[in-house]
Amino acid sequence: MNIMFDGERVRAGTEARERFYDSRGYGRPRGGDLELAPVEAAHLLFRGDIEHVPDHQGRALDFGGFLTSTAVSEVSFLVYKELRDRGFYLSPARPADTDGEFAVYPRGQGPWDDEVAYRVRAVSERESVPAGELRALVGRAAADGATGVLAVVDEESEVTYLELTEPAVEGETDHDLPRVAGRLLSDRVLVSDPPTALYERAFYGQQVDPEGLVQLSLVEAASLADRDLLALEDVGDPGAALRERGRAVEGDRFDRRLRTYSTLRGDGVVPKTGFKFGADFRTYADVESVDQLGHSELLVRVVPAGHVFAPRDLALDVRLAHGVRKRMLFGLVGDSIVWLAAERLTP
Amino acid sequence: MNIMFDGERVRAGTEARERFYDSRGYGRPRGGDLELAPVEAAHLLFRGDIEHVPDHQGRALDFGGFLTSTAVSEVSFLVYKELRDRGFYLSPARPADTDGEFAVYPRGQGPWDDEVAYRVRAVSERESVPAGELRALVGRAAADGATGVLAVVDEESEVTYLELTEPAVEGETDHDLPRVAGRLLSDRVLVSDPPTALYERAFYGQQVDPEGLVQLSLVEAASLADRDLLALEDVGDPGAALRERGRAVEGDRFDRRLRTYSTLRGDGVVPKTGFKFGADFRTYADVESVDQLGHSELLVRVVPAGHVFAPRDLALDVRLAHGVRKRMLFGLVGDSIVWLAAERLTP
Repeated sequence: MNIMFDGERVRAGTEARERFYDSRGYGRPRGGDLELAPVEAAHLLFRGDIEHVPDHQGRALDFGGFLTSTAVSEVSFLVYKELRDRGFYLSPARPADTDGEFAVYPRGQGPWDDEVAYRVRAVSERESVPAGELRALVGRAAADGATGVLAVVDEESEVTYLELTEPAVEGETDHDLPRVAGRLLSDRVLVSDPPTALYERAFYGQQVDPEGLVQLSLVEAASLADRDLLALEDVGDPGAALRERGRAVEGDRFDRRLRTYSTLRGDGVVPKTGFKFGADFRTYADVESVDQLGHSELLVRVVPAGHVFAPRDLALDVRLAHGVRKRMLFGLVGDSIVWLAAERLTP
Repeated sequence: MNIMFDGERVRAGTEARERFYDSRGYGRPRGGDLELAPVEAAHLLFRGDIEHVPDHQGRALDFGGFLTSTAVSEVSFLVYKELRDRGFYLSPARPADTDGEFAVYPRGQGPWDDEVAYRVRAVSERESVPAGELRALVGRAAADGATGVLAVVDEESEVTYLELTEPAVEGETDHDLPRVAGRLLSDRVLVSDPPTALYERAFYGQQVDPEGLVQLSLVEAASLADRDLLALEDVGDPGAALRERGRAVEGDRFDRRLRTYSTLRGDGVVPKTGFKFGADFRTYADVESVDQLGHSELLVRVVPAGHVFAPRDLALDVRLAHGVRKRMLFGLVGDSIVWLAAERLTP
């Protein structure tokens, strides 16, 4: 077979185009000929469809030769193979600056058609992935009318697919609250004589006993103070005092959490602590009263907009959220707050 | 009632001893009188059993006054109250240098008896907890014949109990392996002609295809090389080459994971990647063959012996492990490896 690796692409003739592209979706036609990406050639070598590919220096590369070369990363290969095994046709995505990224066609379709189902980026579990790159992936996928997917290859070569989206987060919760008075403890606020609306309807705080005291978290208290709904005994500016206390116990994270909390409340969603799930918040989209509380829908982790994700931590969060039937959402806090949702996907 | 707070202890007379100690297990008798820790006095104030306690400066402290003072932390109070609500009698633990720690008596018993069920340390979700302190808690509990428990109070004042133990980890897996040859890729090792024992019996690596290639993770490969069971093409000292590669992709963590991996293998336990669970390893105690593989029993996270735990991360790990019916184990790697298990407890 007329085939050669020029160091960047594998170039092959008409016979290869007919065998590999026309019937099985490998490569791109160039006139009557075929151009294969190294990862595609590696897969044909792995399957035994080609035995070896001579390179421009006259060496004959076999499958192992391709994989140990720098032309194709094992991580890209493993994701390519896994998606092929699942019955998909896929092509390395253009432009070339998004290495390790694939356009995956809907099942039964291929590069001859116009539709793309998933834009998949392959990463090793050890790679760090900045939030900005995940958002860019979602954007490139949307431009194709496709879903953005991060495919993480673990150290034992298994692939986990995480579907990424930027959903809107909105709810219907809306209650009028009277102004309340509290006392600042070291890590929370004690409201001795709470109005019923505070806890039982608007779901601020927790009852310490069923008839009286309500404790507010610092973030709940600061959000109420910012809306001028909370006074603190012996404190002139409760919002400032609560921020100061919050920063003392949590640092900058307190400001990010407060902005996220207040944004969610402002959009009709009730955030409560996500501590038991290792998250910042769990959320309820529509709270009429605490007696009729439904299942919380989201787990929210608050991170700076420039956060760099470790795939292992992402996998842990998504796995846990799935196990408790909630959706995992990252609040990327910069000039504004962007919601990035990650869900396990089986393509 | 004859009662007074001297700044450290609340001292009360015979009537208080009869009412609070003899029948309800508050405080310690001192002659015919009673000595209460501030947290115990705060609980009596909270319940309305006492209305206020005069201090040595002549001020009358109510419940809120105690809680906003430095005499009792709200975190200690919340744990004390929660355990009382569950029907336990408990006392602040001695010695005094373990503040926020309680001796909890078996249900139906009290400070009059000799038995302690749990030694409970109360912490805020925001406190950092060094591994050494958790080990010390387990040790103090063991000295009482009790179970060590970390009680984490979240920002909304709910309490999560984590039972801590230092279990032995042993298994029955034992296979003879022939020496195998592989090729080092960037992030794993490819074994082109693996003996059946390698994957199918001893469960090293993953099959890339059902009949041929096996891929080993770097940690599996390094462990085999250290036992002189792996040769690498064109590499004189495969153990050193794999360590170097491992450190390049993971830093010091690679050495800790390798020591943990080899220790578990040496004790008859098979570690495989815990990536899907956000852990370092999941483990199988008794592997006869991969065809008859059971459920993996443990999730292992490897940390340095001096690791400082964030309660939120602990809660996340324990919650996830529980959800997938495994036990969460931390490998504390120092001069030796100590196993610290954490499990959700409902006292």
